[in-house]
Amino acid sequence: MLTPYLKQAVAVLLLLLSAATAHAQTAPKATWIWYPGDYEIWLGNQMQNRRTERGTFFPVFWRMDSHYVLIDFHKDFDLAQPEEVELRAEGQYNVKLDGKPLTGAPTRLTVPAGKHRINLKVYNQATPPAVFVWGKTIASDGSWLVTYEDKEWIDASGKTSDQSGTTWLQAGAWNFDSPEARPSAYKLPTEERRAARVERTAQGMVVDFGRETFGYIKLHGLQGKGQVAVYFGESKEEALATETCETLEYLPVDQPQKGDRTTSLSKAFRYVNIRPEAGVRLDSVSLLYEFAPVAERGKFRCSDAQLNKIWDVAAYTMHLNTREFFIDGIKRDRWIWSGDAYQSYLMNYYLYFDTPTVNRTQFALRGKDSVTSHINTIMDYSFYWFISVYDAYQYTGDKTQVQQLYPRMQSLMQYVLGRRNPDGLLEGQAGDWVFIDWADGLSKKGEVSFEQILFCRSLESMALCANLVGDQPDAATYQKLAADVRAKIFATYWNASKGALVHSQVNGQPTSNVTRYANMFAIFFNYLSPEQQQQVKQSVLLNPQVPKITTPYMRFYELEALCALGEQPYVLKEMKSYWGGMLDLGATSFWEEYDPAKKGAEHYAMYGRPFGKSLCHAWGASPIYLLGKYYLGVKPLTAGYATYEVAPTLGGLQWMEGTVPTPQGDIAVSCSARQIKVRGASGSGTLRFRSKTKPRCKGASILAKGNGQYEMPLAPSREYQVTYQAL
Amino acid sequence: MLTPYLKQAVAVLLLLLSAATAHAQTAPKATWIWYPGDYEIWLGNQMQNRRTERGTFFPVFWRMDSHYVLIDFHKDFDLAQPEEVELRAEGQYNVKLDGKPLTGAPTRLTVPAGKHRINLKVYNQATPPAVFVWGKTIASDGSWLVTYEDKEWIDASGKTSDQSGTTWLQAGAWNFDSPEARPSAYKLPTEERRAARVERTAQGMVVDFGRETFGYIKLHGLQGKGQVAVYFGESKEEALATETCETLEYLPVDQPQKGDRTTSLSKAFRYVNIRPEAGVRLDSVSLLYEFAPVAERGKFRCSDAQLNKIWDVAAYTMHLNTREFFIDGIKRDRWIWSGDAYQSYLMNYYLYFDTPTVNRTQFALRGKDSVTSHINTIMDYSFYWFISVYDAYQYTGDKTQVQQLYPRMQSLMQYVLGRRNPDGLLEGQAGDWVFIDWADGLSKKGEVSFEQILFCRSLESMALCANLVGDQPDAATYQKLAADVRAKIFATYWNASKGALVHSQVNGQPTSNVTRYANMFAIFFNYLSPEQQQQVKQSVLLNPQVPKITTPYMRFYELEALCALGEQPYVLKEMKSYWGGMLDLGATSFWEEYDPAKKGAEHYAMYGRPFGKSLCHAWGASPIYLLGKYYLGVKPLTAGYATYEVAPTLGGLQWMEGTVPTPQGDIAVSCSARQIKVRGASGSGTLRFRSKTKPRCKGASILAKGNGQYEMPLAPSREYQVTYQAL
Repeated sequence: MLTPYLKQAVAVLLLLLSAATAHAQTAPKATWIWYPGDYEIWLGNQMQNRRTERGTFFPVFWRMDSHYVLIDFHKDFDLAQPEEVELRAEGQYNVKLDGKPLTGAPTRLTVPAGKHRINLKVYNQATPPAVFVWGKTIASDGSWLVTYEDKEWIDASGKTSDQSGTTWLQAGAWNFDSPEARPSAYKLPTEERRAARVERTAQGMVVDFGRETFGYIKLHGLQGKGQVAVYFGESKEEALATETCETLEYLPVDQPQKGDRTTSLSKAFRYVNIRPEAGVRLDSVSLLYEFAPVAERGKFRCSDAQLNKIWDVAAYTMHLNTREFFIDGIKRDRWIWSGDAYQSYLMNYYLYFDTPTVNRTQFALRGKDSVTSHINTIMDYSFYWFISVYDAYQYTGDKTQVQQLYPRMQSLMQYVLGRRNPDGLLEGQAGDWVFIDWADGLSKKGEVSFEQILFCRSLESMALCANLVGDQPDAATYQKLAADVRAKIFATYWNASKGALVHSQVNGQPTSNVTRYANMFAIFFNYLSPEQQQQVKQSVLLNPQVPKITTPYMRFYELEALCALGEQPYVLKEMKSYWGGMLDLGATSFWEEYDPAKKGAEHYAMYGRPFGKSLCHAWGASPIYLLGKYYLGVKPLTAGYATYEVAPTLGGLQWMEGTVPTPQGDIAVSCSARQIKVRGASGSGTLRFRSKTKPRCKGASILAKGNGQYEMPLAPSREYQVTYQAL
Repeated sequence: MLTPYLKQAVAVLLLLLSAATAHAQTAPKATWIWYPGDYEIWLGNQMQNRRTERGTFFPVFWRMDSHYVLIDFHKDFDLAQPEEVELRAEGQYNVKLDGKPLTGAPTRLTVPAGKHRINLKVYNQATPPAVFVWGKTIASDGSWLVTYEDKEWIDASGKTSDQSGTTWLQAGAWNFDSPEARPSAYKLPTEERRAARVERTAQGMVVDFGRETFGYIKLHGLQGKGQVAVYFGESKEEALATETCETLEYLPVDQPQKGDRTTSLSKAFRYVNIRPEAGVRLDSVSLLYEFAPVAERGKFRCSDAQLNKIWDVAAYTMHLNTREFFIDGIKRDRWIWSGDAYQSYLMNYYLYFDTPTVNRTQFALRGKDSVTSHINTIMDYSFYWFISVYDAYQYTGDKTQVQQLYPRMQSLMQYVLGRRNPDGLLEGQAGDWVFIDWADGLSKKGEVSFEQILFCRSLESMALCANLVGDQPDAATYQKLAADVRAKIFATYWNASKGALVHSQVNGQPTSNVTRYANMFAIFFNYLSPEQQQQVKQSVLLNPQVPKITTPYMRFYELEALCALGEQPYVLKEMKSYWGGMLDLGATSFWEEYDPAKKGAEHYAMYGRPFGKSLCHAWGASPIYLLGKYYLGVKPLTAGYATYEVAPTLGGLQWMEGTVPTPQGDIAVSCSARQIKVRGASGSGTLRFRSKTKPRCKGASILAKGNGQYEMPLAPSREYQVTYQAL
């Protein structure tokens, strides 16, 4: 009999041994795999087709793509020993070992020692072909290769073609890591929640869940025969407005015994108005809260209670709008819009750093070739997509996503380039929605400067991505095109006397109209000289004569431009008044549009409908991004935070503290006027700050850069404490 | 009481009245409609994925496309009175009247009098979105418009975009003419048939169905527990070869009481070898013969009994290979191959004139954009597809199919043009299968003349189709490209001393190799001068030194070329010896390949497998086409038989008679050396024949064209009897 001590020692030894063995076998984790983008597109269709408007199915107005229905998966292995492998597939399939088909659709296979290739070919019309393969060392994962056309013809003698010229991509995957976790069965999780307040009326009950939320309504103790009408409201007014509320569900009931029932579609609401017909009764109502299981790694706290509340409500708004994909708003569309998603990506880098949701959203937005329309039909939205791909690489360092998307980037850019006018600029052609922003009277005529700015940035992103995937010739082409467009932008739109880029050129003539859009993007894209930056700041950004922005969407960029110019104190006030303004009106999540000049239920109206406006819109959550990037001051300098900057800026706060997620660990920053504490992540950081006095930090060397600027290197995962005096 | 005469008069009057009313209402027949090509592609996937090889799923190696999952259907109506309309859809859908959505997914709608638009928008991931709409005057049919992207965005005020630039196509349809006849549920019909002979053995029974057939095997009086193995054989040898037969099915049985069971997949065979495990017994076996319900309108009979047998077996071969689509062979692939289908189209024009099957097959072959491969990966097969589209128009006069396909013709041609080498010629690049024919040692290197000939004809077909759809600029472009390629062909491949086009150019040098392929196509494409034609006839077609063709596939064109040169007597002998040779070997359908030099079971082998060869291959049925077009001598001169030619040529027969179908009626021809009888169809015909003496025909004027040639106009649907003396 072993002594307890010996037992423990043996256990540790066994653990070490098993770990070593696992390493020697480099046993990867098996996961369900598919053709990259296919599951994403399919899941996008599932999600987006859940939109209803007053009970009527309301689908998108652009092309919905679909998965390839027939996919070949393969990988080559070199085995020291024969290996038993288990196989599962979603679809009708065959299995080949070294090119030879096995009988039937086997769920088990023995691979002999030595070099061997396993192929699975799967057909599935309804859901994406997917496979799960696992053995001791063999496992399906992103290293498998996939194609929708293997071109493996045979000649009359039975010989397989050896020059098929097939393009193989790396398999797509997510986190379906067990054979039972079939991708096609995926559903967001739910949790049951109680109501905050129930008001019983003659016709039924009005239930308040305390704040904006999302999920299914569960009716408890339902009994009788007839119908229950469920009217959803983001506001109480909406839930009570049975004739004009945006969403509703009628449940037919035929239940002699008491029982529970759940609504069929998950919906957004704070209030539900339950109206059972005579003959139907129910005891109570609860919520099955449906949510994306993402972790909030980004944090922010500061000396200003209102700003803390803003950050919390922004984070909640972001969480509600983070679903299978990053969507625009939870009540109405629940669609994936590229411009909206672009902001969600940026906020995500400061909140979840959930790269799979970014990747999924990018794939779902892009869809498949051929290109017959801009993304979401919107010209600007194609551009945000290009820019987002390189941005994502900069934050995540995930080159695979760029490689997988690159062919689709090329074909979309080819479509865009094919729509240039003889001047080489882009104007709206039939079928092009020039969106820019929701703003009354905003002109979309002619060549709008804002679109050219995004076009230019897209070409630059193409050049960067082309270089990344080793396509130097195209990189040079895109770089040249970008330089040409940039020169043309300044030749066409820069109005020196106004100190601004004008809004558009119509019939070959620049207009004299100045709007904020092109100007603010030109700032943080760094297209302006320092003099031009200052001119734009005064004559556009801080000029109340230039039409105000009334959507959080474009306020995102407006405030980012001001932050990039060091105007954090001004932006802080703006955040407090704009987002604080919504809170003062009782907002529990941030809105699609907010015009402080409006009153009462006017705030709920949009699109000509009394409750058309979304009161929980992803683009309402921008303080997350602004506070993380421009106050905590954290951003990557090279891809995936291999190097990064921390440049805390209090902007009028007494103190602030928070974390910013990176691919390998979080960066923690806390800052007051006297002290900066930083704990780096795995890359090499640089702390930048301004100080009246000579700063000090134990175990670190601080470089004075003149003018009160200081710079200090941050080693991976180390903690630093700097004493200084904020300038 | 009415007199019988009056009764009749009233009946006629009522009939006329009802016809007039119907006309006033123009009440069309409602049918299920979809996005053109989508149902065809989806059904093609269903059919083609039924291939199994020894029980293992065996899918295609090219890209399988799929339907668009979200489709908008609409039509504008101008109603004299309000109308009740019924609606059905395959998929999740909404209905809009004049742009306003109705609540839920209504199955009924009242359309007020006046001008109104009905929209249905349908989402269906698994099967093609389809709708069926019917009222008194309103009906879903091919006049409805469809799109996969309506681009109907709204602005912030709720106003719908009025400049969407959407492409609307006419809806696709077939014959699903009742609300219950859902397209996704379509199945070919079956009929139960008895076996011709049953041989009971120790292990079970071997059943002979008397000739090649297709369908499900029904096991009668099955009882016990275990498995029944069903081995299929086109030959008895194959059915007995349990280890090497191409198709089989294992049925698990657990049936305490006697009952019937049917195999799960329809298969091709003449023989089945039934092997129940010990513990399983069965009484008998029958066939559920599965067939396409197409009518044989084309007929042929003549003085030669063997030729009659050849025609019958060819027609049966064709019928077996006419399924949901025109397929290559019923045993093995059951896929849609463009080169094989091209011959089926041509045979179809002389047998069924079933235009829907042609249209379906063309859509399924082409699939969707973007183009990433030749059709079936085969260069020649892309070309047959182009040519087939214009050919079909010539026979059917159906311009709609050309209009629907034209954008896909353009994109496929763009792909082809993008693969030209610097010389402007096409050679096989990685991924291009240069097929030509199954022939040992046939070189595919460099630029093969055969491919350029098909390329040239494809460009000519593009020019003709471009003109048809009113795209004159592209018509001119394609015409110019065709002329360039044609000039290049003769400059490169014509070898004056050999009196032939050589096979290929390798490394910039024409080879001296002469094969039949390019030469025979050059004849019936009419690319040769009369002198060149005679040279080619002698030095290639009738020259035994030039490698012989061993597939009925290329014999089709070889014999067509000879017919075009007036060599009907020679071709008759060839048909009798080649197809007669297969009959002599006991063929009950015609084969994929036939080399008279082979012996016994050697005939069954191909692709390195003892029973790899298909014994029922569509391309084996070419006598149907040759006899109809070059002996009965019937062909359209302008689209849809608006004008046509009848030029009977006995080619050594004493007499022959037959019918050739046209879009409006059949053309009947009977001919001996003394008499020609013709009954025309709805178009204007021209009878052409040669006579030693002055021919006579009552009520017709015959023009002498010199050299014993005569020409006689044929009025629509009239019957003529010409007395002459065959020259």
